Amino acid sequence: MARIVMKFGGTSVADLDRIRAVAARVKREVDAGNEVAVVVSAMAGATNQLVAWCTQLSPLHDAREYDAVVATGEQVTSGLLAIALQTRGVDARSWQGWQAGVVTDAAHGKARIEEIAGDEMVARMQAGQVPVVAGFQGLGPDRRITTLGRGGSDTSAVALAAALHADRCDIYTDVDGVYTTDPRIVSRARKLPRIAYEEMLELASVGAKVLQTRSVELAMKERVRVQVLSSFDDGTSLGGDLRGTLVVDEDEIVEKEIVSGIAYSRDEAKVTVCRVPDRPGIAAAVFGPLSAASINVDMIVQNISADGNTDMTFTLNRADLPRAEQVLADNRDKIGYRELVADKEVAKISVVGVGMRSHSGVATTMFQALAAKGINIQVISTSEIKVSVLIGAEYTELAVRALHTAYGLDA
Amino acid sequence: MARIVMKFGGTSVADLDRIRAVAARVKREVDAGNEVAVVVSAMAGATNQLVAWCTQLSPLHDAREYDAVVATGEQVTSGLLAIALQTRGVDARSWQGWQAGVVTDAAHGKARIEEIAGDEMVARMQAGQVPVVAGFQGLGPDRRITTLGRGGSDTSAVALAAALHADRCDIYTDVDGVYTTDPRIVSRARKLPRIAYEEMLELASVGAKVLQTRSVELAMKERVRVQVLSSFDDGTSLGGDLRGTLVVDEDEIVEKEIVSGIAYSRDEAKVTVCRVPDRPGIAAAVFGPLSAASINVDMIVQNISADGNTDMTFTLNRADLPRAEQVLADNRDKIGYRELVADKEVAKISVVGVGMRSHSGVATTMFQALAAKGINIQVISTSEIKVSVLIGAEYTELAVRALHTAYGLDA
Repeated sequence: MARIVMKFGGTSVADLDRIRAVAARVKREVDAGNEVAVVVSAMAGATNQLVAWCTQLSPLHDAREYDAVVATGEQVTSGLLAIALQTRGVDARSWQGWQAGVVTDAAHGKARIEEIAGDEMVARMQAGQVPVVAGFQGLGPDRRITTLGRGGSDTSAVALAAALHADRCDIYTDVDGVYTTDPRIVSRARKLPRIAYEEMLELASVGAKVLQTRSVELAMKERVRVQVLSSFDDGTSLGGDLRGTLVVDEDEIVEKEIVSGIAYSRDEAKVTVCRVPDRPGIAAAVFGPLSAASINVDMIVQNISADGNTDMTFTLNRADLPRAEQVLADNRDKIGYRELVADKEVAKISVVGVGMRSHSGVATTMFQALAAKGINIQVISTSEIKVSVLIGAEYTELAVRALHTAYGLDA
Repeated sequence: MARIVMKFGGTSVADLDRIRAVAARVKREVDAGNEVAVVVSAMAGATNQLVAWCTQLSPLHDAREYDAVVATGEQVTSGLLAIALQTRGVDARSWQGWQAGVVTDAAHGKARIEEIAGDEMVARMQAGQVPVVAGFQGLGPDRRITTLGRGGSDTSAVALAAALHADRCDIYTDVDGVYTTDPRIVSRARKLPRIAYEEMLELASVGAKVLQTRSVELAMKERVRVQVLSSFDDGTSLGGDLRGTLVVDEDEIVEKEIVSGIAYSRDEAKVTVCRVPDRPGIAAAVFGPLSAASINVDMIVQNISADGNTDMTFTLNRADLPRAEQVLADNRDKIGYRELVADKEVAKISVVGVGMRSHSGVATTMFQALAAKGINIQVISTSEIKVSVLIGAEYTELAVRALHTAYGLDA
């Protein structure tokens, strides 16, 4: 007997047939003697429609009203799944965020969960009832509906698992686990049976969009064991068979790979601020205004100074590039640079693995493998468990394949 | 300066353009110096879709889950209208039933409003804010979402007007007022500038479906002045111009017509229970089982007894006829009738008017007008302000036109 939170994304509840299939799957976990709580997203497409209505009425709409409108998507699926479960003889009821005691901060549209009052739900689960909780939503300090931002249902599920002291949080999605890299690029990519929270975070933040980053951070903080599973397999076995990928504490992984996966991101842009005076405070002068404009800067490189001037290069999300150029132009006098050079034709490739901590030579392997394919490295950035390089976007697939082979990840 | 509740039905908020038009209309009332609260229905068609999903998952779905699903329709429009108002510079916010303190009983799917806590809304209205309240919904005693049943947004609006001590409740709908009869049958039907609550109730219950019956009962009880207006006229003037029909206390109507309107209903069926023993308790034996089966019986006629047996005739909603026949068949031995004769080809025609109370001869005029057209009357029923007759369904239009002329209602 285990206590499990099962989370189903938008494609898993896209229509009534799929909702029925979800109900059947939940029933199997219940029949196996588990205590189950469910978190649901909105039907695929529903949220986009609701967002579009808000945006069409006003591009600068009130985020509190946006939240009231958009939260209805999950409300619908929570009620429908409860009905589908009841018709299968499973005692179930829906819980909206405000009913389930999902308390968030006041950041409408991207709120953070502060607390979930799980006591009543636990008591009902022990009595055999399945709570079906609307994901993605909560109640703000002013008693208004908040939403957690896109993909927030993953975070809802992990937070609920923590509040209910669940043994596991199963995230059913349209992929069947976490792979060593994107199988669309490398056909010999392997599904990882286990991955550490830190690795998952690095993979998620560089483009392997299986779980929302914040949900992984929360899982790591609360030590919630998360399993990524497909909702589209034959569905005859139970989540407990661990056919997906389990995201767990590093200590739970006995056989640590040096490199667990190769990630890539095409959403990058590179900016070089040329010939700025090489003096204390110049980095603050460049990055202060960008930060004030809520533009996240990723990799930063400053070249060695020769003539009292230096070049400063950084990367950022490609969508932020026009705003970043504007902000820097507005501050040109204060920074005192000669010119700005922007490049959108770049990609970031990262190798990730907790085993790196105790192994040297990981970066060298990467540089050699890329050099062997004639790929020039523009920027390098490293962390404890990750090495990232910026390369020309046209080399993305070539680089990913070369590295997948170089680190012995091919199936 | 007046305090006004404005209610917009599903066709008035069917898409973003209509929501924008509603916002413009609300703004005009605000700009005229009025304190305004708004009640909205779901977008036309939205509720039907949500109901269909519930029914497809289970014809016998949990009414509490049904309510959670169906209430989202109004939640969406309340948020969207708030956004549309804000873009026009009108301070506005949405209120869901549970936020607005709309307390109902526990009868999910057809709940009754017990109380609305209007204090905070009044304070905000006085500060210039427009509350946009999701109609049709409330909060049950178990802190779960309830809905009021189809058409319940009218009731929400009237209850809100009572709670806010509003001067008037304007119901914007797809007709522009209450007419002396159905203009599709009588082209010379006139729009009534005023009508008494009691008349409106009689007209609504016999088929002039402009307002939900319960909303009129509530308006009468709470003395809320209700105005029926079209949301599709040119929209340049204000509700205060009283271009619709005002539903008010009889005392507010100075020039009382003897007959205000002619109503008809085609949803009738007639049942005759032939040759039942004419003894005390026989009516209870016939109607007790029907009542126990929640079948509403309308007109009842018992013929004079000749040989110790009698015929008993009654009318009911046509949709209930199969169940009524079954119930009576099941109780045949107890009642002791010889046979049942059912007739679905009947219609009920009613003349309604509070002026009837102080005038005689109203029924006679009706009987003469129908006789002059050769229309046979099958059943007669009268109340203080109404005379109804059951006739062959094929005579419906002929009867309505004849009576409209006979009572001097033609324009």
